[in-house]
Amino acid sequence: MNQVASSSQLDDLCAILRFPSISTDSRHNADTLACGQWLVNKFNAMGLQAELRPTDGHPVVIAKNNYQTGRTTVLIYGHYDVQPADPLELWHSQPFEPRIEGDKLYARGATDNKGQLMCHVLAAEQLLAGGADLGINLCFLIEGEEEIGSPNLGAFIDRYRDELSCDVILVSDTGMVAAGQPTLSYGLRGIACGELLVKGPASDLHSGVYGGIVMNPARALSQLLAGMHDAGNHIRIDGFYEHVRPLENWERESWAKIACCDNAELQQQVGCSELVCEQDYSAAECLWARPTAEINGIGGGYQGEGSKTVIASQAMAKLSFRLVPDQQPADILDKVEKHFKKYAPQGVSIEFVRGHDGQPYLADINSKYAQEVKQALQEEFGREAVLIREGGSIPIITTFQQKLGVDSLLIGLALPDCRIHAPNENFSLTNFYKGIALSANILTKFAKLH
Amino acid sequence: MNQVASSSQLDDLCAILRFPSISTDSRHNADTLACGQWLVNKFNAMGLQAELRPTDGHPVVIAKNNYQTGRTTVLIYGHYDVQPADPLELWHSQPFEPRIEGDKLYARGATDNKGQLMCHVLAAEQLLAGGADLGINLCFLIEGEEEIGSPNLGAFIDRYRDELSCDVILVSDTGMVAAGQPTLSYGLRGIACGELLVKGPASDLHSGVYGGIVMNPARALSQLLAGMHDAGNHIRIDGFYEHVRPLENWERESWAKIACCDNAELQQQVGCSELVCEQDYSAAECLWARPTAEINGIGGGYQGEGSKTVIASQAMAKLSFRLVPDQQPADILDKVEKHFKKYAPQGVSIEFVRGHDGQPYLADINSKYAQEVKQALQEEFGREAVLIREGGSIPIITTFQQKLGVDSLLIGLALPDCRIHAPNENFSLTNFYKGIALSANILTKFAKLH
Repeated sequence: MNQVASSSQLDDLCAILRFPSISTDSRHNADTLACGQWLVNKFNAMGLQAELRPTDGHPVVIAKNNYQTGRTTVLIYGHYDVQPADPLELWHSQPFEPRIEGDKLYARGATDNKGQLMCHVLAAEQLLAGGADLGINLCFLIEGEEEIGSPNLGAFIDRYRDELSCDVILVSDTGMVAAGQPTLSYGLRGIACGELLVKGPASDLHSGVYGGIVMNPARALSQLLAGMHDAGNHIRIDGFYEHVRPLENWERESWAKIACCDNAELQQQVGCSELVCEQDYSAAECLWARPTAEINGIGGGYQGEGSKTVIASQAMAKLSFRLVPDQQPADILDKVEKHFKKYAPQGVSIEFVRGHDGQPYLADINSKYAQEVKQALQEEFGREAVLIREGGSIPIITTFQQKLGVDSLLIGLALPDCRIHAPNENFSLTNFYKGIALSANILTKFAKLH
Repeated sequence: MNQVASSSQLDDLCAILRFPSISTDSRHNADTLACGQWLVNKFNAMGLQAELRPTDGHPVVIAKNNYQTGRTTVLIYGHYDVQPADPLELWHSQPFEPRIEGDKLYARGATDNKGQLMCHVLAAEQLLAGGADLGINLCFLIEGEEEIGSPNLGAFIDRYRDELSCDVILVSDTGMVAAGQPTLSYGLRGIACGELLVKGPASDLHSGVYGGIVMNPARALSQLLAGMHDAGNHIRIDGFYEHVRPLENWERESWAKIACCDNAELQQQVGCSELVCEQDYSAAECLWARPTAEINGIGGGYQGEGSKTVIASQAMAKLSFRLVPDQQPADILDKVEKHFKKYAPQGVSIEFVRGHDGQPYLADINSKYAQEVKQALQEEFGREAVLIREGGSIPIITTFQQKLGVDSLLIGLALPDCRIHAPNENFSLTNFYKGIALSANILTKFAKLH
């Protein structure tokens, strides 16, 4: 399939990418809603019955065909919201005006998740062309709050639990270990977020007049943050590793063979002078099966042009912890808060504000659905799929498992250089078209299962 | 003197406070220039010969009477520029619209330095009324770049060295230890500023996809900043204390008797849960005679609403070091840079960008000019003046000593709760009127010296 022959598919992808559907920023609420409505219109035009269903936050798009008993019921999950685009000055083109260069389409959301979700949408459109019967029961569930931790999707699933009942869930919101190497992910890290506030003097102080007798909140914050790791890059929070399930031998052995997980390749991807891993673990193990403690943002005092000789009254850090089975987000946040309160320096008070969280996930890689997906991956990409876990978090996948009792199969189409969450995010056009073919292949195989 | 009788003096103070003459922010260049021009007009109206003299930055205001040989030549220094007013949301009224409440006048620059400098301007106006002869040679030098470290004043003094030749310099840009307690300062801390940049991955990374294999620049920054102090609050930078002159016994003894330097009083002023001082030194000693390492600003990653699961490619901290005799700013910045380069964690690179600096200062407290000032302070405030050093830095004072060979006498009119450099900066109206009387008294005494 070439680009010219598929211009309407590419047009659709560009159309959805033009919405700045930034769910975390309330100034973009209208854009986010408009993006959901665009999907509803698209699904209805394809011949599905689609609608926006309200939540306490951004609405969910539901689109279904007419269910028939005795057929495999497939739920396809995706999200139409995106991360903020800043820092804007580092983009080479406008984040919400798609730009094609070679095999890459550049835009915020190109890979995460609009590009990948549109592969499934356009596969269904192709299979439905001319009023054809899919041979399966198909339901799309596309939410608008994944990037803020899907705060309302749990309640949504509870409310529509019977209607959402299904045999298997397909999700493309993960990565391929390399271009051309089909990849099936069976695990995800969980996440627990929080913001650490350090408060010192009642108001900002002149650093000359008062410097030397007060604990500077930015210094106290630095001490607390520096204390989260030891020299071997282990996390020093008491009990942090208590519930971490050890890696299995087959995982360590098979991952060691994945060429693109070697340090030189990864170092090239991240553009660092050297990788800094947890002692005694390989890079792949650190990414997929070890927890982390990261600073996502830090701020305090004067950050503008020039200088200001001030001791700011407070400083803050936005933190996130990636979790692995069987760590529990609430338990981890308890331990983190206890740690900060225990080690808070004299002369400041601290506050730990909890953010969104999601549980880690492991799927059954031997189910009949997983076998069909592996087969389709091999057929479309011409190589056997590798089985990996993912470093990222899709908390809702665990929620699906808990509330619907169904595994999600994670068919990643993101490439290592796709820059999701960063400036110049992009999606491979090759993967876009192969992704459409792959989804059509999988749905066709599922139709034959019953 | 009461407020009603002095309304034109108060009007003048309010007029100069309305200029947002923020020297560090180039968006306010026109406001800064207008403020200097206002002073020129004021001086000319008083009967002095005044003009704006250009520099490579903001211009200097020079105003003089007709010099006569055999008279004492007095130079009065001040600055018409102010600190930025942010965070604006913490002000109870507009920072550039003066507001009076009780004895306080609230505005950015109220104390630092417009209020204090206007005491001298209005004293001269009073003495010159009706075309009277001052009996001294008087020169005002009011610069517009004190808050950014007076980068062009050294060259200015070199250029006009002969014209600026004088016997003594008066400066009111320091504090009183308590309301009603006249205070003469004979020492100032120096300053050395710099910005520490920590650079890691080539671009921002998704903290799920890549968390666990890269050194987060915000973590590296925290480690470097946390490493600047030990548990006793001593600075751990190699050689930092090498040239620090020990305190003299009379200083330690007399400072210990100043009631308002006790910890409870200071703690009340800064509004902290407890003071955090360098081990083995009193609070007054830490403020006036011990060097510091402060973080004035820290920033990196996402600081907006909600969360963003990102490892930012860089993080930065704005730092300033307060110095005491005989530390040298360039030597200290060398040591700081060496320290950061030595301790930079693996996987990041660091850059240290030097900012403005100024040398520490000690004056001869036994000169005839100092004796007259002490006498005038006692007459106007009804109590013997205390002799202290100041925690803040006025780098130009050292420059005057070096280039003109003259001491500056620091007659502080700032009160402990004046909140300079912070929201709700204010000036005591009592000190404003006493300051005018004090300046007139000193100039009259100086006229009798020759």
